[in-house]
Amino acid sequence: AIADAAEDALRGEGGALSGRHVVVTAGPTHEPLDPVRYVANRSSGKQGYAIARACRQLGARVTLVAGPTALPDPRGIETVHVETARQMLAASEAALPADAFVACAAVADYRPAYETEHKVKKERGGLTAIDLTENPDVLASIARHASRRPALVIGFAAETDDVLGHAEAKRARKGCDWIVANDVSPGTGTMGGDRNAVTLITGEGDEAWEDLPKSEVSRRLAERIAGALGPAPG
Amino acid sequence: AIADAAEDALRGEGGALSGRHVVVTAGPTHEPLDPVRYVANRSSGKQGYAIARACRQLGARVTLVAGPTALPDPRGIETVHVETARQMLAASEAALPADAFVACAAVADYRPAYETEHKVKKERGGLTAIDLTENPDVLASIARHASRRPALVIGFAAETDDVLGHAEAKRARKGCDWIVANDVSPGTGTMGGDRNAVTLITGEGDEAWEDLPKSEVSRRLAERIAGALGPAPG
Repeated sequence: AIADAAEDALRGEGGALSGRHVVVTAGPTHEPLDPVRYVANRSSGKQGYAIARACRQLGARVTLVAGPTALPDPRGIETVHVETARQMLAASEAALPADAFVACAAVADYRPAYETEHKVKKERGGLTAIDLTENPDVLASIARHASRRPALVIGFAAETDDVLGHAEAKRARKGCDWIVANDVSPGTGTMGGDRNAVTLITGEGDEAWEDLPKSEVSRRLAERIAGALGPAPG
Repeated sequence: AIADAAEDALRGEGGALSGRHVVVTAGPTHEPLDPVRYVANRSSGKQGYAIARACRQLGARVTLVAGPTALPDPRGIETVHVETARQMLAASEAALPADAFVACAAVADYRPAYETEHKVKKERGGLTAIDLTENPDVLASIARHASRRPALVIGFAAETDDVLGHAEAKRARKGCDWIVANDVSPGTGTMGGDRNAVTLITGEGDEAWEDLPKSEVSRRLAERIAGALGPAPG
């Protein structure tokens, strides 16, 4: 009970995001081919979960839309579990209206074009390729939502080369306000690790946050979100 | 220290598998397409980890070759972490000689034919299919090992239809001694769950073990392995 009270205090009722609703997506998506096989993106979910916690600590109501991860549900945060990109989009839309949307999940761009009910057997001719079809774009769909676009829409860009170039292009293409760009090349240790080096791209300049714990990246981002939204009305 | 002593006692030095070396594979494999995307099989690893623990409790030395799971390394068991089917085969061969090999992992039959160093960008024409190539067969490779075939080689068959028919065929095709067949259709709750319903196929008849905790399936299997191997020489 003492720990609960301490955590409630940390949640900062009356904090800079008090009265705000923030939706955060986190983790990978898994796109099934048959009952046992799937195509996936790598993502531990750690950065997205940390952002959800950081926004909660500034007093926001937070909805976390989480793909499959090994992480426990964070306390005090409504966590909606999904598996596929289509489910992640539906859960994100269902969570609106929101003041800010943070698309931290590593959504699979593509899914298998056909999903079979039974396991595809190797001995029945086998598989020579997985035909793909494009998934809906969760970030762009929310950033261009006809009736309920959040005031602030933030995407993440996980790139392995020309990180800033790809990220600037992504900001324009998706219609989002900010992009948090990071380099996930093998060897950076970002993927699955506890630290991150990111560049925040706001359209008013780039800001590099170098080699910080994911919790600190999250705290800074939550504060920037609060600053951009200003005090909640009422 | 008391817990450690209790656990050492449970390990049954002088148990029915004392003096034996058992290699167990567990979990899925992940087959990379590029630094962020991969093709995978579903497997929590729970059944394989439980078998490794059950063999250890009967006194065996156990090597656990584990694909990516969310499970902690079991105490007192040498755990080798791998990602791909090729790595799983290499680690399994490196663990020989062994008295028994239990292939519980859900190894991906196929991997992407080409792995790229940089993330494949959607805007550069995109992906329309993932070309596949066949993975090495871990179970058959160990069951047909030229110089160091373990005395007892056991495979698992996760099927969604005609479970026994597919499993009997698999036993012959792979050259293994026993098959543990289970039905992983959606709705059975086997996948990722803590219970299992299996049929042990030994070539001398089928034995159904219905709706048991995975720990109990493991205990029975470890005892059957000990019975088949008999007392260790020396």
